[in-house]
Amino acid sequence: MKRFEQLAADIAHSIQSGLLHAGDRLPSIRLASARRRVSPSTVFQAYYLLEARGLIQARARSGYFVAPHVRRLPPETHQVSDPPTEPCLLDTSSLVYRILKSTQDREVVPLGSAFLPPLLFPLQRLGKAMGAAASQLDPWSTLDDLTPGNRGLRRQVALRYLIDGLHVDADHVLVTNGAFEALHLCLSVVCKPGDAVIVECPCFYGCLQALERFGLRAIEVRTDARDGIDLAALEAAIVEHRPKACWVMSNFQNPLGSSMPTDKKRALVQMAARHALPVIEDDVYAELYHGSARPVPLKAFDTDDWVLHCGSFSKTLAPGYQIGWVASARFAQLLAMHKLEATLTTCIPAQVAIATYLAAGGYDRGLRRIRTALALNRDHYLESIGAYFPKGTCVSRPGGGYFLWVELPAPVNTLHIHHAAMQAGISIAPGPMFSARQEFKHCMRINFGNAMTPRVEQALAWLGHACTTA
Amino acid sequence: MKRFEQLAADIAHSIQSGLLHAGDRLPSIRLASARRRVSPSTVFQAYYLLEARGLIQARARSGYFVAPHVRRLPPETHQVSDPPTEPCLLDTSSLVYRILKSTQDREVVPLGSAFLPPLLFPLQRLGKAMGAAASQLDPWSTLDDLTPGNRGLRRQVALRYLIDGLHVDADHVLVTNGAFEALHLCLSVVCKPGDAVIVECPCFYGCLQALERFGLRAIEVRTDARDGIDLAALEAAIVEHRPKACWVMSNFQNPLGSSMPTDKKRALVQMAARHALPVIEDDVYAELYHGSARPVPLKAFDTDDWVLHCGSFSKTLAPGYQIGWVASARFAQLLAMHKLEATLTTCIPAQVAIATYLAAGGYDRGLRRIRTALALNRDHYLESIGAYFPKGTCVSRPGGGYFLWVELPAPVNTLHIHHAAMQAGISIAPGPMFSARQEFKHCMRINFGNAMTPRVEQALAWLGHACTTA
Repeated sequence: MKRFEQLAADIAHSIQSGLLHAGDRLPSIRLASARRRVSPSTVFQAYYLLEARGLIQARARSGYFVAPHVRRLPPETHQVSDPPTEPCLLDTSSLVYRILKSTQDREVVPLGSAFLPPLLFPLQRLGKAMGAAASQLDPWSTLDDLTPGNRGLRRQVALRYLIDGLHVDADHVLVTNGAFEALHLCLSVVCKPGDAVIVECPCFYGCLQALERFGLRAIEVRTDARDGIDLAALEAAIVEHRPKACWVMSNFQNPLGSSMPTDKKRALVQMAARHALPVIEDDVYAELYHGSARPVPLKAFDTDDWVLHCGSFSKTLAPGYQIGWVASARFAQLLAMHKLEATLTTCIPAQVAIATYLAAGGYDRGLRRIRTALALNRDHYLESIGAYFPKGTCVSRPGGGYFLWVELPAPVNTLHIHHAAMQAGISIAPGPMFSARQEFKHCMRINFGNAMTPRVEQALAWLGHACTTA
Repeated sequence: MKRFEQLAADIAHSIQSGLLHAGDRLPSIRLASARRRVSPSTVFQAYYLLEARGLIQARARSGYFVAPHVRRLPPETHQVSDPPTEPCLLDTSSLVYRILKSTQDREVVPLGSAFLPPLLFPLQRLGKAMGAAASQLDPWSTLDDLTPGNRGLRRQVALRYLIDGLHVDADHVLVTNGAFEALHLCLSVVCKPGDAVIVECPCFYGCLQALERFGLRAIEVRTDARDGIDLAALEAAIVEHRPKACWVMSNFQNPLGSSMPTDKKRALVQMAARHALPVIEDDVYAELYHGSARPVPLKAFDTDDWVLHCGSFSKTLAPGYQIGWVASARFAQLLAMHKLEATLTTCIPAQVAIATYLAAGGYDRGLRRIRTALALNRDHYLESIGAYFPKGTCVSRPGGGYFLWVELPAPVNTLHIHHAAMQAGISIAPGPMFSARQEFKHCMRINFGNAMTPRVEQALAWLGHACTTA
């Protein structure tokens, strides 16, 4: 993150946390430059960025002021789930499938989508890398790059870990068909049908589907919309149910947007080690932070090697290429064995293309562009929800990713809203998709990956109205 | 197949069946041309091809004669397996994994490999198609081409079915990460852990691994090395064990090379329909026929829609691209649902690339080249095995694909041969890999995808010696 971005992030945080109020005057460029010990142009760039994000406004000959509309933000949700402690078998798959199919139509306003808009990605540049990789493909690589995967790509993934201060051996990185396959493989190496697995509540529906598919029982654990899974409840569940795995997203959890503080991450990993419990870490959103740095994964504290860390390029660089990975020393060989049996290998030209692209160094530039767009969108969406949704609506404040968790006043049923919205050409992700017991009927997940346009604003206004009159 | 290829195939068949003996004189070009009602140049091309394949020899001023060495072919195996009728749980995975890993080294003579040599494929031309597909990729296709897959590719697959006289709706074709994923998905939609599944004996180890992974029990059914699974034994097993699926390769079975006659295929499909038994048809070798036409799949007789037909481009066009499919109307939606959950989608640029390549029409030309090479290699390998392997060795006569099933005199243990051969830089696929109970210790599968070179001949001579002295 460049200096001006850091400064902008700091100021944005001051505004969002309420330290700076709407209408407050910002320090002049000269003053800020002196205080912060940065050049005036850095301050100018930061103010310019904040203005573009709608957080501050320039007034002729008076300087910069905190924009008034930030007052309209809906209150932050303080939801803490409190699921029953009994494990349960799942039956969410068909609900999820029906909703996902309905959101695939590109004419629909994709507030329920799981994906970022494809135009955010450097698909053309990547396509060039793919062309070069495929037409210059060493024919022998069709054998050499079989599972565990292309050596160059595994090295690039290990290098990204190194940049974040983690030491992961390239030999312990297994390339997979996206994070989905990585997560499935993790489950398949640590669990047998009938076993219990700990999940957050709410959690990513793909996790619930995978558990259902493997005949596993879900133990939903109390989860805070701000800082993630409750460690006391987690330990109680471990002791009581002897689960075979814990599936968790410590950064920008889907759907909550919650992120675990660093100390909590460390404590979770230590707890897992004490109980010899494999932790399947789904970390696909970490690179999409809105703040100043990538939050560390659980894997960073994993001295005893119980964390299976899963990542992907699908949400950060190459949607549709389906290149993901899992990193684990302890389970490396078992994972490779299961991968070989399940899908033999991952598309080899795509592996080589992404390795080449990463080595050439355009990845971070693209990521910065996506992050800036997401942070901007997030505030716009929060604002629109504040303006249009019924009184009593609370919304999460994710520090990364592209999902808002919207908690509506109690009688609203988002499954009904979903059906009505589809008729109106708008998709949402209703709360019950994210729960083993199909709870959270008064909640929905909103994708803010698309820029705020009149079309999106109208869709949010329609939704707000539908929720108000429901 | 062109006219001269047809003629060559007919003559080769006459030689291999014993109708023409070594030393027999072939009709002159003029005579053959008149009798067959083809041009002299067609006859000449056919004789030229047969000469290149080592089946006939030209003698100056005397014409063409059946080559003497065809006498050295080892006898054809008449193996008919006779497994116990009880279902069994599996534990073959780690054996298979160890053997597969050891064969991945490109310095080894890959007689145990599951793959064709990559240089057989038009990887450069395909790479160009991939480059075009990736750099001109419609960004929206990263959403539109999600499971069930790219529309153009599914249409091309449906067109290939149509050429073979099958009517398969493009909507009932699901694109998968190679045939492996297709087969796994089929199992996952028709079976639950603990169910019994019928398999051939011996059968493809990937099938045994998949059954092991899903916690399914294998019912091995008596199988003839020439014409496949025994229908009486099959029906008895269905009645006795109420299996949930039957996994079968009706064409060029791996490892036997057996092919079911058309009537038997029809009868099997009718039997499956009577018992409402889903048939998972692994048909990845059918396009690699050595004869005159693609043998029909079971799916061709599938009026009641119980056959889930699985195919792939990995063995015919694009190794490493991992593009396969499954065709089934009855299970189409369930398959798509499971696919979406398991790996979300198949690499989209690769799907578009193959669709483009197929539409442009180079696929069949490439296939003809591969088929000619394989038919030629087959005879050379048979000959070398005849020359070097111990008396009593019998070998299959596959009509397609690239595997020979070698049945050795009883005391030979191919697991021991495998270990010794690896030390000598030669891989084989020992028989126990292909059996739920690790039987067939006196058998091995030999890959004849590589042209007969001195290196390969030496390897076969080494193996023959090792088997003789074992």
